[in-house]
Amino acid sequence: MTYRTEHDSLGERKVPAQAYYGIQTLRALENFEITTIPVSHYSRFIQALAVVKKAAAMANMELGELDSAVGEAIIHACKDVRQGKLDDQFVVDVIQGGAGTSVNMNANEVICNRALELSGHEKGRYDIIHPLNHVNLSQSTNDVYPTALRIALVWYSRELLHGLRELRDALSRKGAEFGNVIKMARTQLQDAVPITLGAEFAAYAVTVNEDIDRLEEVMRLLCEVNLGATAVGTGINSVPGYGARACAILADVTGLPISQSANLVEATSDAGAYVTLSGLLKRTSVKLSKICNDLRLMSSGPFTGLHEINLPPVQPGSSIMPGKVNPVIPEVVTQICYQIIGNDMTVTMAAEAGQLELNVFGPIIAFNLFQSLEILTRGVHTLRKRCIEGITANDERCLELLKGSLGVVTALAPAIGYEAAAKVVKQAQETRKPVGQVLDEQGLMTAEEYNELLDPSKMLAPRKLPNRKAAEDK
Amino acid sequence: MTYRTEHDSLGERKVPAQAYYGIQTLRALENFEITTIPVSHYSRFIQALAVVKKAAAMANMELGELDSAVGEAIIHACKDVRQGKLDDQFVVDVIQGGAGTSVNMNANEVICNRALELSGHEKGRYDIIHPLNHVNLSQSTNDVYPTALRIALVWYSRELLHGLRELRDALSRKGAEFGNVIKMARTQLQDAVPITLGAEFAAYAVTVNEDIDRLEEVMRLLCEVNLGATAVGTGINSVPGYGARACAILADVTGLPISQSANLVEATSDAGAYVTLSGLLKRTSVKLSKICNDLRLMSSGPFTGLHEINLPPVQPGSSIMPGKVNPVIPEVVTQICYQIIGNDMTVTMAAEAGQLELNVFGPIIAFNLFQSLEILTRGVHTLRKRCIEGITANDERCLELLKGSLGVVTALAPAIGYEAAAKVVKQAQETRKPVGQVLDEQGLMTAEEYNELLDPSKMLAPRKLPNRKAAEDK
Amino acid sequence: MTYRTEHDSLGERKVPAQAYYGIQTLRALENFEITTIPVSHYSRFIQALAVVKKAAAMANMELGELDSAVGEAIIHACKDVRQGKLDDQFVVDVIQGGAGTSVNMNANEVICNRALELSGHEKGRYDIIHPLNHVNLSQSTNDVYPTALRIALVWYSRELLHGLRELRDALSRKGAEFGNVIKMARTQLQDAVPITLGAEFAAYAVTVNEDIDRLEEVMRLLCEVNLGATAVGTGINSVPGYGARACAILADVTGLPISQSANLVEATSDAGAYVTLSGLLKRTSVKLSKICNDLRLMSSGPFTGLHEINLPPVQPGSSIMPGKVNPVIPEVVTQICYQIIGNDMTVTMAAEAGQLELNVFGPIIAFNLFQSLEILTRGVHTLRKRCIEGITANDERCLELLKGSLGVVTALAPAIGYEAAAKVVKQAQETRKPVGQVLDEQGLMTAEEYNELLDPSKMLAPRKLPNRKAAEDK
Amino acid sequence: MTYRTEHDSLGERKVPAQAYYGIQTLRALENFEITTIPVSHYSRFIQALAVVKKAAAMANMELGELDSAVGEAIIHACKDVRQGKLDDQFVVDVIQGGAGTSVNMNANEVICNRALELSGHEKGRYDIIHPLNHVNLSQSTNDVYPTALRIALVWYSRELLHGLRELRDALSRKGAEFGNVIKMARTQLQDAVPITLGAEFAAYAVTVNEDIDRLEEVMRLLCEVNLGATAVGTGINSVPGYGARACAILADVTGLPISQSANLVEATSDAGAYVTLSGLLKRTSVKLSKICNDLRLMSSGPFTGLHEINLPPVQPGSSIMPGKVNPVIPEVVTQICYQIIGNDMTVTMAAEAGQLELNVFGPIIAFNLFQSLEILTRGVHTLRKRCIEGITANDERCLELLKGSLGVVTALAPAIGYEAAAKVVKQAQETRKPVGQVLDEQGLMTAEEYNELLDPSKMLAPRKLPNRKAAEDK
Repeated sequence: MTYRTEHDSLGERKVPAQAYYGIQTLRALENFEITTIPVSHYSRFIQALAVVKKAAAMANMELGELDSAVGEAIIHACKDVRQGKLDDQFVVDVIQGGAGTSVNMNANEVICNRALELSGHEKGRYDIIHPLNHVNLSQSTNDVYPTALRIALVWYSRELLHGLRELRDALSRKGAEFGNVIKMARTQLQDAVPITLGAEFAAYAVTVNEDIDRLEEVMRLLCEVNLGATAVGTGINSVPGYGARACAILADVTGLPISQSANLVEATSDAGAYVTLSGLLKRTSVKLSKICNDLRLMSSGPFTGLHEINLPPVQPGSSIMPGKVNPVIPEVVTQICYQIIGNDMTVTMAAEAGQLELNVFGPIIAFNLFQSLEILTRGVHTLRKRCIEGITANDERCLELLKGSLGVVTALAPAIGYEAAAKVVKQAQETRKPVGQVLDEQGLMTAEEYNELLDPSKMLAPRKLPNRKAAEDK
Repeated sequence: MTYRTEHDSLGERKVPAQAYYGIQTLRALENFEITTIPVSHYSRFIQALAVVKKAAAMANMELGELDSAVGEAIIHACKDVRQGKLDDQFVVDVIQGGAGTSVNMNANEVICNRALELSGHEKGRYDIIHPLNHVNLSQSTNDVYPTALRIALVWYSRELLHGLRELRDALSRKGAEFGNVIKMARTQLQDAVPITLGAEFAAYAVTVNEDIDRLEEVMRLLCEVNLGATAVGTGINSVPGYGARACAILADVTGLPISQSANLVEATSDAGAYVTLSGLLKRTSVKLSKICNDLRLMSSGPFTGLHEINLPPVQPGSSIMPGKVNPVIPEVVTQICYQIIGNDMTVTMAAEAGQLELNVFGPIIAFNLFQSLEILTRGVHTLRKRCIEGITANDERCLELLKGSLGVVTALAPAIGYEAAAKVVKQAQETRKPVGQVLDEQGLMTAEEYNELLDPSKMLAPRKLPNRKAAEDK
Repeated sequence: MTYRTEHDSLGERKVPAQAYYGIQTLRALENFEITTIPVSHYSRFIQALAVVKKAAAMANMELGELDSAVGEAIIHACKDVRQGKLDDQFVVDVIQGGAGTSVNMNANEVICNRALELSGHEKGRYDIIHPLNHVNLSQSTNDVYPTALRIALVWYSRELLHGLRELRDALSRKGAEFGNVIKMARTQLQDAVPITLGAEFAAYAVTVNEDIDRLEEVMRLLCEVNLGATAVGTGINSVPGYGARACAILADVTGLPISQSANLVEATSDAGAYVTLSGLLKRTSVKLSKICNDLRLMSSGPFTGLHEINLPPVQPGSSIMPGKVNPVIPEVVTQICYQIIGNDMTVTMAAEAGQLELNVFGPIIAFNLFQSLEILTRGVHTLRKRCIEGITANDERCLELLKGSLGVVTALAPAIGYEAAAKVVKQAQETRKPVGQVLDEQGLMTAEEYNELLDPSKMLAPRKLPNRKAAEDK
Repeated sequence: MTYRTEHDSLGERKVPAQAYYGIQTLRALENFEITTIPVSHYSRFIQALAVVKKAAAMANMELGELDSAVGEAIIHACKDVRQGKLDDQFVVDVIQGGAGTSVNMNANEVICNRALELSGHEKGRYDIIHPLNHVNLSQSTNDVYPTALRIALVWYSRELLHGLRELRDALSRKGAEFGNVIKMARTQLQDAVPITLGAEFAAYAVTVNEDIDRLEEVMRLLCEVNLGATAVGTGINSVPGYGARACAILADVTGLPISQSANLVEATSDAGAYVTLSGLLKRTSVKLSKICNDLRLMSSGPFTGLHEINLPPVQPGSSIMPGKVNPVIPEVVTQICYQIIGNDMTVTMAAEAGQLELNVFGPIIAFNLFQSLEILTRGVHTLRKRCIEGITANDERCLELLKGSLGVVTALAPAIGYEAAAKVVKQAQETRKPVGQVLDEQGLMTAEEYNELLDPSKMLAPRKLPNRKAAEDK
């Protein structure tokens, strides 16, 4: 292998000649061997860095701060990075110290050397194009890194939103499909009152839709960026007008409704938007996990469980129990949800530990949010495609369970009073007689009245009872 | 002590004759001896139960379901409860099982017996007014409890919002007061570039203001209630029109923008709004704790720390070290924040564990949200009044530290290039010479240029350098 | 009300004449109005402070540092405090800043004034006995507070251990009682293989017992105290020999195996033992919650759930559904567990945020550990007494479910091979024929062989199959 | 690409001809595309699966259940797997549903096909050697998976222990090196009393050592395995004696003190040991993060911070501020710690959600524990090598800060009383006179007495003051 020699303020190092990255990336590689997962695992982040660098270069050129030949080369290099051509050069570990400096330097060096190459120069000729003086001009890690992070989060969130919308629609379709499947609702896992399976799935669709609404709200927050803040929000080392221009170009280049934060000092140290996004992913996880738990409960059995629905079998369930099929898709989604809830704790602690002008823990925040978004998006897709869409209902089982139960007696309370109804239930349980018979024997109600009153299909909505008596419990 | 005898479906029990609560409350008292803190500790919740019961009674009367004499007595009793006259009768432990049933029954029994008393009857005459058949008419714990919880949360949140606005204003005033105190900004606790103390406090005001905005958003979500859902969202045992009417009356009685959820099945099992509120309280805590940590850092010393600001002394600091004064107010606020972050975890787990038609863990969610809101509101008030408002700046110390530092050299980079600037810094550190002298000796800059360039007061915003040279690092 | 005037380094204040506490407690009251719960809510902590102060006084007297008349009065006052006679004087909020200084000063002042009173002097005559110079002699909040905290934690932990042992024994008795109730085991909520209900309860007893073992281990850690460290572990302002002697006396006075930490600097800033205790309470909570979830699952129904066991009814379950009885005791215990898991997060963050020579967040750690221990102890007691001891089994239902299932076919696999067995299951499911018939029709096994092989009572332990064939799946 | 056709109970699928894995692994690949990180990322886990499968095969052979030719081939294949030769065949995603079944099947299939190959047969000839009937004989995922998990955790924990011991020793050496560097101790970030820098580092060594002790304790728990439990702890489908024998062989093969759990039903559903391990990793993280925060505080500056120590520079610190060097190593370690604390929450939720006979969430527990152990081990190594070992002290700065402070006056309290000392401090602060002068002017102490009393080097341990007066504050 051949090498070129580079130097920084700590001294000289040999860098592989073919590498687009340079000495500072090399040092970061050595300093941070933590997960062995390179930052390019989250390719959207690399793309976001490219558009930020491009916007900065364009603004610098417009304002006369950057030579146009150098600027054009940088812009071209940014395009290559955005297209993923240099992904393998983004080698810094996803977990690093330094508040993102190593990632920013990785981008500066790769873009610089690619720009040199495009200009017909050898890599490493920083006297012609310089990673800091040119590629990073008017910038600091402290504005570039969070700006790129936010753009990447918006992009990943959009993919999640797409998945959530598909999931909502699939749930909604099941809601319609199961609209006539009458079954027992359960509260506290105890027999409650009649409902339809369709109403349950329709409710899942609604709950997912609410998360879609919340997520769209947070995307607005994420589109406020601090580009132009430079080191601490004062814009030091940038020229007047640069920040506003760079943000406008960034909005243009990405097509996103990007705006510059009104207070750049606050924006540079603040981690509030990350906490909000993470909290929403947690919220979505809480709800998806609840849905998955319901699916596991309702499909339990098939013989010793509830067995109201069937999940599509996707793999044999056991290495010892032949014929067993397990709810592996809801199980994997619940685990994803737990991961995201744990990640939220990491994000929370990292956000809380910011000090003075900067939160230094951006990298762990980025890693956790990226991972949460990635696995949640995949989980949502998997849940829809490999589970929800194939669910079938056991109509007869649902009805059979309902009919065997005493839960329908709730409808008696308005007619004969809560306490009288409770006594009827107790007597029916003790004597194992049908409720209708008990009512009849006690002269509380005729069979006809009873059949009308306790028809499950009439318990699915408010109703006016025809012959309501004054309830008189004693 | 004299007693009256009451019965329920489990049998008979003696209840103290003077008690407004009844047998079911008594059982709950015995079953749940957990914290010994009664639910009335959170008086807003009791008030919210009163308004919900009142709205239900009014709707029932309007729809002809409730005798007007009975209804009026109930409404009068609700008024008494709302005014706090019967707080000592709400004795159920803040942590209980049963999804809130015991709290709802506590309210039903107290209102019933107070209504009986107001009607000239003895307590316990449930043949005349009944806790379930009348007070709880058309209702279920599953709609009453969450509706009351949400109203109480809105009321408590408003108090917090008031406190946050006062805090924001106090921070903002300090921002103005310290606008001319130039000091060193620090990133990663290392000397960075100049800033003003005022800019730091102004940024705190902005960050608090953002939380105010978020909190206002979530209050809209909390105003969507499921009253009328009864047991599982189907409205069983209510008459057509009841739910809509009860919600409208509730909006009227409370003056809040209350509306009924579009999907009552979803609304009855969903805990999303609680997770969102809790997540926002966590977010606010993360930020307040960061501010408090900054205050502790900036006031550290007085001799061996940063000592840029003075916190008002509020108590002697040590039982062994005479004269020591500690930052006890930021310390207590940080601890409040940690409590809220922990509470959020409890809320999250409780929300995730909901099953099928109901989340049974409402009580622990309620307890944690109430506690978080209570201590955060008090913490915000304490922070403002006992700390922020009395902070003074050590102007001279700030300037002295800044002047002794090398951080100003950042401004050199655009003029002479990043690497040349880094070398100057290194040389200044090694030789302990002033930066100006090093620049002069190397012929990089005249004293005049240097003084202009490195004037801290000119580093607080973007600027166009007069004699910018092309940066040419080699 | 009459007052006496006291002063401290911040000035003078009027203290109610009858109060045993003094000016510093008064300031703390005003500074920390957070939960309105006084520290005396956790009376064990007050008792622990009393024994620490007593041990310090005795050691000081032995070493000639404290006048014996003053010392005796202090010791007598400590005795009164330990007996709870002055609990109402410990008024500082459970959440405070100052690393426990206010609690230590509260103790110093109360003991001092009680000692003055016992010596025939008026309260406030600090020229005779002084809260700091005498009661706090050779001490600092930084060693007194954590030492008292640890002793209180040991005392509370002992109560929890007692409760856990009773719970374990109750579970164990149920294990024996249900030893012959054969039922279906479920993995992933799907029918698995036969087990007995007794084996399940016996396993619960074992799991609780393991937590008892772990908790006993951590009590050893808690008995290492830093008394004698004074401010930062160097023992400043104490005389040689004091620390060792004070610890020895403390061991004697409490009867606990107390020893002094080997490295007092480490011990003064370290919060490791609290994190360990909190982590174990979390572990116990995880397990108890799992047991409670199982109880809720197994008692679900009664008609549309598993209904294998009956929990004793302790209160009516619903305000709308007559006759419904809910698993309120497991529900409350699960909520307690979630609270403890949340509290653990608070403890973790507080422990992590320690800086340099001291962790300033002792008060929030104390509050959370005390609350966790208190509610867990009560929860364990409630669970045993109001639930476990009254559980009954539905033997017939268990057997009926088992017989209806196909789970027993697992035992076929060793005899005819996994894949052949899976095919038999599938065919039985599709044709709704009994497994025995399918086997017979396919000539795989005679009815006799089948009955022997698939007898559930023979599937509860390893066995050698009489006529095992080589499995030959193709 | 060529394929072979395999089938399972769900039907037929084409498997790449050269693949050692089979149809069930293929299905798992398709079902679980979550992180795209294969389970072989944690190679110790694959090795552990190999030794478990080997031990099972050996026990089966000994007991006459497995043909010796088949058994030998399996054992040989296990050896290959343990040596890492087939790592690329373990392709299942680290996050999967199914309680580990897919991982177990991945192992069964790879070992089976490798055994077939070694026996001279083609892959896929399951009529000769079968993944379930032979490789998985007498086993279930429910005992194989947790047993392998525990062994892998022990192996990873040993690597962590090694790293912690090296870290402890490095800290201990720094403790000795800095033994004479006197400095100011700070409590609550305020000037406290003198200490040595060496005492601080020695305390860090002690605190790390305590975690080593705790971790060694938990390894004992991890060595209790449930091999032989098969599906639910009853040992179904195994022969008498198998489990005990398999565990004994496992102990022998691994050299670990492995024993079989006394209650296999409990052991199969229990996740207690994982929670304990995770809790300890959290504890270690809490402490390491605290140490890292201290390092960042003490090295803050260099001009506007404490600057008591220098961390070795490992990379340039800023893309905008020339010459800035940041504490990137403590920063990355703190982030690792936050990740582990978040992972602990995931483990906790997964452990709590176990139901009935099995905790289905083993895979997410495994992933999080593996990741935590991996990154903590690397973090500990990085911290020692790239930071601790190169730390130097700024002796003069430490002394200068100390001398400028008033913290030494603590030593006055025993001599002249707490309140008098507090007044002296106040006066010295107001008049800016040295403490000695104030004392002299007030006739409280001669210069000689003062110099003796307030010599910082004499405040590092308990001492008997020569001329102690009775303290008489008024």
